[in-house]
Amino acid sequence: MPPLTQQLEEETLDSRHTKEWLRRYQRIRETSESLCAPLHTEDYVIQSMDDVSPPKWHLAHVSWFFEAFLLIPFLKHYRPLDPAYDFLFNSYYETHGTPFPRPERGALSRPTVEEVYRYRAHVDRSMTELLDHLPEEHGGEILRRVELGLHHEQQHQELLLMDIKHILAQNPLCPIYRHDLAPAPPQAAAALEWLDHAAGIRLVGQNPDVDRFAYDNEMPRHREFVEAFQLASRPVTNGEFLHFIRDGGYERPELWLSDGWQQVKQARWHAPLYWLERDGEWRYMTLGGQKPVDHHAPVVHVSFHEADAYARWAGARLPSEAEWETAAAGVESSGNFVERDHLQPVVAVPSNALKAPTQMLGDVWEWTGSAYRPYPGFRTLPGSLGEYNGKFMSGQMVLRGGCCATPADHVRTTYRNFFPPHARWAFSGFRLAREA
Amino acid sequence: MPPLTQQLEEETLDSRHTKEWLRRYQRIRETSESLCAPLHTEDYVIQSMDDVSPPKWHLAHVSWFFEAFLLIPFLKHYRPLDPAYDFLFNSYYETHGTPFPRPERGALSRPTVEEVYRYRAHVDRSMTELLDHLPEEHGGEILRRVELGLHHEQQHQELLLMDIKHILAQNPLCPIYRHDLAPAPPQAAAALEWLDHAAGIRLVGQNPDVDRFAYDNEMPRHREFVEAFQLASRPVTNGEFLHFIRDGGYERPELWLSDGWQQVKQARWHAPLYWLERDGEWRYMTLGGQKPVDHHAPVVHVSFHEADAYARWAGARLPSEAEWETAAAGVESSGNFVERDHLQPVVAVPSNALKAPTQMLGDVWEWTGSAYRPYPGFRTLPGSLGEYNGKFMSGQMVLRGGCCATPADHVRTTYRNFFPPHARWAFSGFRLAREA
Amino acid sequence: MPPLTQQLEEETLDSRHTKEWLRRYQRIRETSESLCAPLHTEDYVIQSMDDVSPPKWHLAHVSWFFEAFLLIPFLKHYRPLDPAYDFLFNSYYETHGTPFPRPERGALSRPTVEEVYRYRAHVDRSMTELLDHLPEEHGGEILRRVELGLHHEQQHQELLLMDIKHILAQNPLCPIYRHDLAPAPPQAAAALEWLDHAAGIRLVGQNPDVDRFAYDNEMPRHREFVEAFQLASRPVTNGEFLHFIRDGGYERPELWLSDGWQQVKQARWHAPLYWLERDGEWRYMTLGGQKPVDHHAPVVHVSFHEADAYARWAGARLPSEAEWETAAAGVESSGNFVERDHLQPVVAVPSNALKAPTQMLGDVWEWTGSAYRPYPGFRTLPGSLGEYNGKFMSGQMVLRGGCCATPADHVRTTYRNFFPPHARWAFSGFRLAREA
Amino acid sequence: MPPLTQQLEEETLDSRHTKEWLRRYQRIRETSESLCAPLHTEDYVIQSMDDVSPPKWHLAHVSWFFEAFLLIPFLKHYRPLDPAYDFLFNSYYETHGTPFPRPERGALSRPTVEEVYRYRAHVDRSMTELLDHLPEEHGGEILRRVELGLHHEQQHQELLLMDIKHILAQNPLCPIYRHDLAPAPPQAAAALEWLDHAAGIRLVGQNPDVDRFAYDNEMPRHREFVEAFQLASRPVTNGEFLHFIRDGGYERPELWLSDGWQQVKQARWHAPLYWLERDGEWRYMTLGGQKPVDHHAPVVHVSFHEADAYARWAGARLPSEAEWETAAAGVESSGNFVERDHLQPVVAVPSNALKAPTQMLGDVWEWTGSAYRPYPGFRTLPGSLGEYNGKFMSGQMVLRGGCCATPADHVRTTYRNFFPPHARWAFSGFRLAREA
Repeated sequence: MPPLTQQLEEETLDSRHTKEWLRRYQRIRETSESLCAPLHTEDYVIQSMDDVSPPKWHLAHVSWFFEAFLLIPFLKHYRPLDPAYDFLFNSYYETHGTPFPRPERGALSRPTVEEVYRYRAHVDRSMTELLDHLPEEHGGEILRRVELGLHHEQQHQELLLMDIKHILAQNPLCPIYRHDLAPAPPQAAAALEWLDHAAGIRLVGQNPDVDRFAYDNEMPRHREFVEAFQLASRPVTNGEFLHFIRDGGYERPELWLSDGWQQVKQARWHAPLYWLERDGEWRYMTLGGQKPVDHHAPVVHVSFHEADAYARWAGARLPSEAEWETAAAGVESSGNFVERDHLQPVVAVPSNALKAPTQMLGDVWEWTGSAYRPYPGFRTLPGSLGEYNGKFMSGQMVLRGGCCATPADHVRTTYRNFFPPHARWAFSGFRLAREA
Repeated sequence: MPPLTQQLEEETLDSRHTKEWLRRYQRIRETSESLCAPLHTEDYVIQSMDDVSPPKWHLAHVSWFFEAFLLIPFLKHYRPLDPAYDFLFNSYYETHGTPFPRPERGALSRPTVEEVYRYRAHVDRSMTELLDHLPEEHGGEILRRVELGLHHEQQHQELLLMDIKHILAQNPLCPIYRHDLAPAPPQAAAALEWLDHAAGIRLVGQNPDVDRFAYDNEMPRHREFVEAFQLASRPVTNGEFLHFIRDGGYERPELWLSDGWQQVKQARWHAPLYWLERDGEWRYMTLGGQKPVDHHAPVVHVSFHEADAYARWAGARLPSEAEWETAAAGVESSGNFVERDHLQPVVAVPSNALKAPTQMLGDVWEWTGSAYRPYPGFRTLPGSLGEYNGKFMSGQMVLRGGCCATPADHVRTTYRNFFPPHARWAFSGFRLAREA
Repeated sequence: MPPLTQQLEEETLDSRHTKEWLRRYQRIRETSESLCAPLHTEDYVIQSMDDVSPPKWHLAHVSWFFEAFLLIPFLKHYRPLDPAYDFLFNSYYETHGTPFPRPERGALSRPTVEEVYRYRAHVDRSMTELLDHLPEEHGGEILRRVELGLHHEQQHQELLLMDIKHILAQNPLCPIYRHDLAPAPPQAAAALEWLDHAAGIRLVGQNPDVDRFAYDNEMPRHREFVEAFQLASRPVTNGEFLHFIRDGGYERPELWLSDGWQQVKQARWHAPLYWLERDGEWRYMTLGGQKPVDHHAPVVHVSFHEADAYARWAGARLPSEAEWETAAAGVESSGNFVERDHLQPVVAVPSNALKAPTQMLGDVWEWTGSAYRPYPGFRTLPGSLGEYNGKFMSGQMVLRGGCCATPADHVRTTYRNFFPPHARWAFSGFRLAREA
Repeated sequence: MPPLTQQLEEETLDSRHTKEWLRRYQRIRETSESLCAPLHTEDYVIQSMDDVSPPKWHLAHVSWFFEAFLLIPFLKHYRPLDPAYDFLFNSYYETHGTPFPRPERGALSRPTVEEVYRYRAHVDRSMTELLDHLPEEHGGEILRRVELGLHHEQQHQELLLMDIKHILAQNPLCPIYRHDLAPAPPQAAAALEWLDHAAGIRLVGQNPDVDRFAYDNEMPRHREFVEAFQLASRPVTNGEFLHFIRDGGYERPELWLSDGWQQVKQARWHAPLYWLERDGEWRYMTLGGQKPVDHHAPVVHVSFHEADAYARWAGARLPSEAEWETAAAGVESSGNFVERDHLQPVVAVPSNALKAPTQMLGDVWEWTGSAYRPYPGFRTLPGSLGEYNGKFMSGQMVLRGGCCATPADHVRTTYRNFFPPHARWAFSGFRLAREA
């Protein structure tokens, strides 16, 4: 849980400043609701697997976050709408009461969708009141938590899109989230190039000169030695991944880590999630409906194990976090984020820069070869907010760069996303690396 | 699957006759919808355990039954609203395509509730057309299937109430289905008497002189020898069951069948379903909200294993099917069915009859000691309708008499209901028997 | 738990009488050990599935039975060899301490096989002492328990053979239990005939005029009305069962009860247990090694569900318990029991009797269509021995007649064996019945 | 799979040299058998959990390794004792046929223990023949594989002790592996000191100048930047761990990673494996029987999650691999390995060296904070031996330093052991680190 920058503490918290925060608050809160606008009431209720939450749960949980960490501690006379919500919408904060069991979120018809929206309005009114009359003594802490709460809500906006996709994908009626998504550009993918990086000591982790905000898990900035390596100029495409499939990639144990091979056999994986073959042609389900697989777009909805197996098949490997971050630093981004409204990775706009990688940010989260572990000197925040990131540092792999479902102002090159190595429902792809 | 009575075949299927059927069709179909009227859209979507189906699934499935077994075979030019519904709303007819997996019914947000009601209207219009212009050659078969379809829908009306209760019970917000249910009468339970029955050969199974309609599993009427026995004059009450609990009933393995004891330990049963103890007082959840346990009303939501253990504790046993049916024959009924609008068992109105049992019909389904197996000479119907009852004849126990959630004109003394011995979400209670 | 006959109570328990019991004790105890003689030490330790127990466990448990129910209560100064055995070798007597968890029997290397044999010798010495100096006051009760204990040991002799077969069958090395089993006679199966039985009231249950001993679950003798029926003259053969397989029997849901069909799909059943097809020829594993399937011998190692599905396919059904017992009464037996040393069902010796069924006793346990439930008036013994049979009366089906692994003097026509409807590792086959 | 050092390739493979290898072969092979000498035949057969293998399986599998990778490819006219062993004793080499399913190793009574020893003798004779007449052209490769095979066998010697301990621990009879183990020295643990390490670039991975042999996963030697840190002078002791327990360590979610906390709740962990509390005193099960917990000895049989939670409780953390290896380099070792015959960690002999850590090698494997992932530039061997280490590089954490059950000449400071973060049956403890 990242403190705002030091500067903030010294700033005068004048009314102009807090008004900006209020506007940002309102903009981000509205975005969550507009993402849900295409849903039917019934869609809000479904939990299609343990990892997925019903959309109405997301909408309520992000509001609970403001209630639990801002309104209750800082807004005088605040009255929760329903005291039971503190139990129902606590996701995983064990030190803040007992969270409602995650796999049972889909068993709750109440509060209804309408009541959840009423809860949001209640929280929004109270947050407006808090920001309109910022208590001087806690002003810095409040704004820091508002900033965290808004990043938290943006994370859940991406989760909403991931979960809605998964929910609709279970349905044999093949419902379509939106019919009016922006069409993919008709470009062809650029040829893959290998970009050289020299060996040396690098600084890894949040650089406050570049990014005002960062999560606790991106800190502290520290030194790492990176041996010379090469990084691919772009992510692996669907067309390339099809070669792997056709070369028996899913049937050859020597290409897989042991856990990955168990998973392939047990879950009968034979292609990325949402792919299906019909009459020899591969199609995939997107938020805009079923489409033929676009050979030029980056492959997405693959697990770490599939990325790792592909890399082994291709005689390469996945980059480490430090390599990825080193390579991404200073590269100009024109990424495909949620605002571009594709909600699906597309071919990169060719870069003007010579020898610069494309799509480091946007399109697909890129699996790295690094397990999600703390940086040397890592510290969690005191209190329940210390559970935000740190407690998941086992059994997960790091992904970098954001995706087509990420808000553009939510992500940065030092951002560490993480999922278990078999997870596929995120917009996750990968980029190859190899020894120099 | 029960043919209508023989008489029907000889009747002239005149317009007056079919109009009666149409009225009956409309009445029963409307009842299903009025049972769902108190629900919010979200409540229709939940599957709170594998045995439970989302209410909207019930509403669609009973319509599918008419579509699959009447409209498609008999209504010329009939067009299904959506061909996928044939797959989605087939419950378990393996010989009629592949049923959609039962545990995943709760993963479907579409069709929406509104679309399901549209489906019902579509089926209703077509059924009206079919009944308005009954094709002469198949008239008898059509009316037989209409009758079956309506009994099928009535069964699902009871399931709807069972499932709604279970769905709402999962929710820590304790939602209440209806605030305006009929209040329980303030009577005390009558003292339990033992009614004698002599040994002899009895006729068991549907008696067409009494009941025009019966399911296939109630046939054929046949002879059974019943040894002399005594049957309790009324079901076991909550107050009596509390004595069992307080006497350590749930902690004494010698009172339980082996399977029952495993279940008690594994599921940590310590009282009937929906009961909870708070500050030494027992309460239970009803469709009208949480209430103190009524000591005088019949105990409900107990499994066969609990009924069997109680009976052993009480030095008695459960009656066999033949004993129950023998004792129920000719007894006047003023049962508490769904029309009484308690939706909870209540104390019986005292019977005027000397030495006659009360509540044989209504209030609670009564567990018998008989496994659900075919009668000698049992035959299933040809075709998919043969799967209606017969294929469940292993691993289940028979219950008799209907309950407070059963439509009064759906049940009869020969009616054989069945559930696995550990099931508790039906309105199931029991009555004791013992050797003469 | 069956009392010895009334006569016994009046007998003088003279020394001659108890010596006979001692000889019987010694003979039966030795038989258990000789059944294990072909085993290697390692074979004694394996638990190949939860239902199977390691052979050394069987050898110890039957000794524990004598220790717990005879030596400790009745032999003065008796000292258990190891007090922990009372916990380790209690099978399921919940009222006699806490049984060691069944699925973990295969996790125990100690006591070693040698120690188990030492335990047997210890119990045998003490039992000899008890029988040599029978305490007068408890003499009747002691002999009744000895009789029960010996029948119990005989049941475990059959279980030993079932379990040894299952244990060896898991092993890709295909170990053979014995190379010197009696060869099957080269006869052909007799043509199947349907034998008529008239309707009427029958007496069912132990007839003390015929069988001195019976288990509690065979009592009391009582009246049942049996409608007219026909019973097949012999069990279904392997050859006949092959027709069912080749006619798609395992692929047609309409032939199966719902539970059976779930089991077929989940466990991928496609033939009886121990069968395998190689190059179009069917073979099965026997205690004498792998053999080609004998078309003339009764089919064995089928579940109730397979028997039931076959019967439906054949336009017949399984007999009820009462039908089977009615038909078996008074039929001369020359059954194939364990003493014939085939340890596999074989073709029946043709009967001289006109219109009499063959193989009612011996060869294969015959699944009936009756669920295992108590007879009217059933009573368990007081104390822990009451758990012997009664507590399993849910979820199981009755089998009748004994098999090629049963001691001939252990079984009788009223004997009720029982297994869950999916169990196949017993020597279970079936015989058809149909309406008259 | 580590090549022998480069020097070897240039050596003359003279007879003296290969005789040394033969002696080493014989010595290590004999050690495996002497470790099993205290077992009863029955002990060899048990698989007490999926992770454990029956001791006879270990004895056979290590022989299979020599057969599959040396005798079949290199010894002319070699005839396997039984062709089925290639399937039964292949542990996990997917590219070498289909391995027998791991969880079913405990279902195999055959080959018997005697046959396994015969198999060992067969392999040993053939290996002697191979080494006696080393084929010149493959001499280097053969010796490299012999070296690997012997290290492999030494790994399984430790696994044998781990598994035997687990097998005996399941048994309520509390069998004791050996009564004659070396007693623990009566010393008290030295006070914990924090040893400083400066920041800088370090070389990590096998240093061929120090260790002639290493596994593939220790290579290549490469540069890492290590920030300044402090390392504890000795592992955490039982006494210290008891403070954690008594301070509610197992009940406070804020001390645990999320996965760890799930595990604590689900498996009801409340102390290290093999500990039990009786009358307020803590005891643990050792290979020499149950003992009171020695407060001065290093804690053992804790998972990564327990180590991590303890460290958080203590305001410290676990060292990274690079930190541990940096600190261990050049430290004199007098570790407690299997040859000391304690088979349990003991108090360290105080070091003479000023400011040097004790017990870096021996006593307990030390959990690090590093996930088990490949070093930059890591390569697996071609062929099936490539599966030796590399394919397990997901979901596991690294442990360092060997333990009281490790052969002294098997381990080194660069050795990377690995287990899943919840595993506890290894002799695993930990040492604290913290920021400088």
